[in-house]
Amino acid sequence: MATPLLLTMGDACGIGPEITAAAWRAEAGEQAAGLCVVGDVAVMRRAIGWLGLSLPVAQIVSPAELPAVPPNCLPVWQPHDLPKGLLDCPIGQVNATAGAAAAHCIAAAVRAIQAGEASGLVTAPIHKEALYQAGIEFPGHTEMLQALAARNEVLPPVRMMLANEELRTVLVTIHCSLRQAIEQINQDSVLQTLRISDAAMRGFGIAKPRIGVAGLNPHAGEGGLFGSEEIDHIAPAIGAARAEGIDARGPFAPDTVFMRARNAPGHPGEFDLVVAMIHDHGLIPVKYLGVEQGVNVTLGLPFVRTSPDHGTAFDIAGKALADASSMRAAIRMARQMIGS
Amino acid sequence: MATPLLLTMGDACGIGPEITAAAWRAEAGEQAAGLCVVGDVAVMRRAIGWLGLSLPVAQIVSPAELPAVPPNCLPVWQPHDLPKGLLDCPIGQVNATAGAAAAHCIAAAVRAIQAGEASGLVTAPIHKEALYQAGIEFPGHTEMLQALAARNEVLPPVRMMLANEELRTVLVTIHCSLRQAIEQINQDSVLQTLRISDAAMRGFGIAKPRIGVAGLNPHAGEGGLFGSEEIDHIAPAIGAARAEGIDARGPFAPDTVFMRARNAPGHPGEFDLVVAMIHDHGLIPVKYLGVEQGVNVTLGLPFVRTSPDHGTAFDIAGKALADASSMRAAIRMARQMIGS
Repeated sequence: MATPLLLTMGDACGIGPEITAAAWRAEAGEQAAGLCVVGDVAVMRRAIGWLGLSLPVAQIVSPAELPAVPPNCLPVWQPHDLPKGLLDCPIGQVNATAGAAAAHCIAAAVRAIQAGEASGLVTAPIHKEALYQAGIEFPGHTEMLQALAARNEVLPPVRMMLANEELRTVLVTIHCSLRQAIEQINQDSVLQTLRISDAAMRGFGIAKPRIGVAGLNPHAGEGGLFGSEEIDHIAPAIGAARAEGIDARGPFAPDTVFMRARNAPGHPGEFDLVVAMIHDHGLIPVKYLGVEQGVNVTLGLPFVRTSPDHGTAFDIAGKALADASSMRAAIRMARQMIGS
Repeated sequence: MATPLLLTMGDACGIGPEITAAAWRAEAGEQAAGLCVVGDVAVMRRAIGWLGLSLPVAQIVSPAELPAVPPNCLPVWQPHDLPKGLLDCPIGQVNATAGAAAAHCIAAAVRAIQAGEASGLVTAPIHKEALYQAGIEFPGHTEMLQALAARNEVLPPVRMMLANEELRTVLVTIHCSLRQAIEQINQDSVLQTLRISDAAMRGFGIAKPRIGVAGLNPHAGEGGLFGSEEIDHIAPAIGAARAEGIDARGPFAPDTVFMRARNAPGHPGEFDLVVAMIHDHGLIPVKYLGVEQGVNVTLGLPFVRTSPDHGTAFDIAGKALADASSMRAAIRMARQMIGS
């Protein structure tokens, strides 16, 4: 049996538990034992009830017990010392206990991966404000995972990839102002993104990944007329990457490179992945056809980590209205990445 | 008969004459007399030959002669003093004579509109470098048309709209670096864009246009955490527009507002139009599904002007390979705007 993939339940007051249960039911299939929920047993039972599923929960004390779980039971590993009282937290609201429990599950999952008990992580949504109220200072999963994966306090360089069935994009800059993003674009940050992207695509089984690089400025700077970042930073990084054997091309005009990369029936994509300089160059096209299939992947960690491309959706939590498509797509992508 | 719509042939060395002839043939229909080419008769005959069309050319000396043109003849108005020797210009290359002739046709067309002989303009692609070699300092159609439409040397404020069947977007900033674009975003430039957009949508027959406004920064600034332009400039402009009765909403996160506005079968759009702060926020989603149907519209001019959303495509000029879909869509949109 392949080492299992862990599904953290996310914020207990959001849609995380629901989409985790629904996605497990839809995706587990004959490989059920390969997927293990990390969460609170009572919270998961409540979510199963909301969904009207006939799905018994099998509580286990470590992922190593997975093979013993009967088929058609949802395996839930409730980590030791998980904060209690989650059923008392009001649904659809920011809550410190829910934030603390979500973080506890993530940390336990990473420790299990580091101990060789699991191969990767699919994370249901957490809420930044709930983390903050619990005294946890990370703005999101990415930063928390980076810290948990640090060696000798050195954080591994990571990049966010967003992907759906048609398009993959990796971002050089993410959560900062556009002014700050421009300052963060330099030969090193672009080259590092190209290296991480190339390695990740090889991990996906693509022998010679074709990476299209979007420029920063309109028309990719129009030869320096509309900005010099392409000439000063992006083109040199592409050149350096090519010298390392990475098939990076560009910089191309941002407004057409995503269209060219789009891989749809009758429209083979020119690139396996597009590197975008700023958050919304990359996210606008990935989300344009709907967020249901979007998957967020953290590249650069020493393990696989994917997540759905949406938040806790407090407004619909507990109503069995949440769409588990993105969580399901995140599970499929993680399985593809770990080769199970 | 409605006042005619003029189709300028564009750069004679590019695909302009071909797509103009093909689009006329496909779109003229029973309203043939409503569409008049402004160009060189010999160049248009050559393009018709490349396309293998059986389409006689009827040369006229002013748009007023259109009603006398027999059906199934392509009406071509060759403006007085059009530069000669166009057939000698090498196809697929930048050429000063072709640049001068393209500009001459545009200027003649605008004069005809100003004289009440025509109602609007659909422009086939021109080449910036060819204009430059001809001593014409405008970077493109928009700036040239703005100058031709000036009154007492005051340029009318214009904005570029890009539209396809699913999405319309109007840009606050266009052809400059991203750094400069950020500097150009202020309450006035955003408010003026909202006014121009609202008036244009009413001209399209939408009684109460719903305008979604995209932010500049990731997550529309996340409450000031990722930049302050939303708080300092964009939200106040939206407030001022709403006080004028304009149904502007936002600012919304750039990565989802276009998805929300997308109007497709089974997916009614939430907005009639999205105002984007920067060139590529708007153009990435409009082009993502293919440039074939994209139309560029100049809003704010005292007349209708549309164009295809692509360039002169020198590499395929003269080969009957050019796709006239975008030129056809530009004709249809201009007709919709002039109500013919």
